[in-house]
Amino acid sequence: MIGKNCKISDTAIINENVLIEDNVTIGDFCVIGLNPNNKIKKKLIIKKNSIINSHTNIYLGSEIGENNIIGHNVLIREETILGKNIQIGSFSDLEGYLSIDDYSKLHSCVHVGQYSKIMSYVYIFPYVVLTNDPIPPSDIRHGVILEPFSIICTRTTILPGVKIGFSSFIGANSLVNKNVDPEMIGSGNPLRIKGNISNIKIPKTNKNAYPWIDRFKKDYPKEIKEIYTKMREEYLDSE
Amino acid sequence: MIGKNCKISDTAIINENVLIEDNVTIGDFCVIGLNPNNKIKKKLIIKKNSIINSHTNIYLGSEIGENNIIGHNVLIREETILGKNIQIGSFSDLEGYLSIDDYSKLHSCVHVGQYSKIMSYVYIFPYVVLTNDPIPPSDIRHGVILEPFSIICTRTTILPGVKIGFSSFIGANSLVNKNVDPEMIGSGNPLRIKGNISNIKIPKTNKNAYPWIDRFKKDYPKEIKEIYTKMREEYLDSE
Amino acid sequence: MIGKNCKISDTAIINENVLIEDNVTIGDFCVIGLNPNNKIKKKLIIKKNSIINSHTNIYLGSEIGENNIIGHNVLIREETILGKNIQIGSFSDLEGYLSIDDYSKLHSCVHVGQYSKIMSYVYIFPYVVLTNDPIPPSDIRHGVILEPFSIICTRTTILPGVKIGFSSFIGANSLVNKNVDPEMIGSGNPLRIKGNISNIKIPKTNKNAYPWIDRFKKDYPKEIKEIYTKMREEYLDSE
Repeated sequence: MIGKNCKISDTAIINENVLIEDNVTIGDFCVIGLNPNNKIKKKLIIKKNSIINSHTNIYLGSEIGENNIIGHNVLIREETILGKNIQIGSFSDLEGYLSIDDYSKLHSCVHVGQYSKIMSYVYIFPYVVLTNDPIPPSDIRHGVILEPFSIICTRTTILPGVKIGFSSFIGANSLVNKNVDPEMIGSGNPLRIKGNISNIKIPKTNKNAYPWIDRFKKDYPKEIKEIYTKMREEYLDSE
Repeated sequence: MIGKNCKISDTAIINENVLIEDNVTIGDFCVIGLNPNNKIKKKLIIKKNSIINSHTNIYLGSEIGENNIIGHNVLIREETILGKNIQIGSFSDLEGYLSIDDYSKLHSCVHVGQYSKIMSYVYIFPYVVLTNDPIPPSDIRHGVILEPFSIICTRTTILPGVKIGFSSFIGANSLVNKNVDPEMIGSGNPLRIKGNISNIKIPKTNKNAYPWIDRFKKDYPKEIKEIYTKMREEYLDSE
Repeated sequence: MIGKNCKISDTAIINENVLIEDNVTIGDFCVIGLNPNNKIKKKLIIKKNSIINSHTNIYLGSEIGENNIIGHNVLIREETILGKNIQIGSFSDLEGYLSIDDYSKLHSCVHVGQYSKIMSYVYIFPYVVLTNDPIPPSDIRHGVILEPFSIICTRTTILPGVKIGFSSFIGANSLVNKNVDPEMIGSGNPLRIKGNISNIKIPKTNKNAYPWIDRFKKDYPKEIKEIYTKMREEYLDSE
């Protein structure tokens, strides 16, 4: 169940029903494949080249894609489906029954409620919370949807069922209580729309800061511009 | 000092002066009975049927009631008194010298300052902070009081010494700087009172969403309605 | 590499290239000297009398000063330089390439972004975030500067490059989007300046609550008053 060239720390606990592909790294004191009441029948799969840092807990029934980097002290519950090239910051809490698509990055301490749908190339900063319960406490779950290339700044709270449109930018500390159209800036508590993302300029120049595809490279594919352009048509047309 | 049918993980550390009752589960890499300077003389008691999930730290001098579920990575300091059927979400920080009464639920990442008093059937959502220092930094501690059935939504901050009345509802992201009467809705920064809880309706119906006792069952006692009604008289009379 | 009279827990992992001075305590399940890709060449130094509590991760290339107390579940990345008599609360996340000077205290769950500069005698309360990216996401880093004796209350967010002046007081839940002069009160989202710190009184007296040097002793040096007065001249002159 463990592939080639993996580095599994001696102190990591790998439970039954876990499939680990090649070149995976698992740090100290991780617990991989949690299944508290033996109710989860589905395997946990950790795909090739992924890194799980120390003290992280991952439940059975989830899927960690290729080339992911999972921070320290992360909690990932069952039915969490992660695509490839994803980063999950330390202390983040993925509550399960949710998906995160390729190349999305979550910084530290992000709380992702059940039934959230985070599409590709999304960037989420520390202490963002995606909620899901419209009349708390209840058993109703309305997940948040973040469309591709959306950016959610530090400590924003997104209320249940809200959709953030393609490439929109939500400022720090906002409370998002309604849907946001594509390519919009939103901020405040409650949220106010502050115009198109082209209004934000790079400091000391007059160049547009958004979309960031021309100025921020990280590990994104070389064809990021084409990907953006193609997705843009799709998502702006559908609105 | 360890009862019957307990499941204590091999990697959990159980220090001296800890009393564990029957059917208790303790997850991997927990440290149970911390006593850094050997100053705490009181035992730690973990009562029957309780579950402590992995990576959780609990100090000596506290009491974990029956049927509790304590999440992953929780920190519980000395003189924390938990009743029965309580849930404490992962990454929560209970700073000690505080009490939480029966059937109250704290979601992930809740910070409970010293001298907080959380009564029964309270529901607290992620990233709520109960503060206690009126002129920070100081050695003065004015704990927050949450009366029974009160609901504190995601990321609300409650200032020192504030009392939230019976069955009141505090919206997400609020800063609560004054007492809230029973059965009121409050929200915003600073807090504004938005009327009686009967104003909040279940989506797509005209039914009252609060109190939740008719529509949310979880593990509450069958007599929840009678309990609510009786407590309501007591707390509304005393105001 | 380990000094005299140290208490290193059996379950703590001490990697290579770590220098631990006398009388240091390291709790269970800590990982000390992390170096994921073997890229960090600098040592990690933990100076005498410091205490590292359980489940804490510290990377190589940092310096933990004398008499520090580091909480549980803390994450300290490379190039974090801590002075002496510092406290770092549990679940705090020090992202590296930052400095914290003598006698500063961080409560639980404080997030310190790269290139932050926290000077001496600063007090930071839970869930404060010091950000650093002016056009997120980017590779630009403008660190926050907190001058000596500044106080940052619970859940405040400080935007990139902002400087908080000597002995200023920032209220709970604020979003600080501009520099704050010395000895000022600021609060709100966005921040509003509410006058001089002498406006805040100790409850039930007419005495000034700030600076706190006359009323809060903790472990500060006996000459705290002289230190404050001397620094005050320096920082108020320089503005």
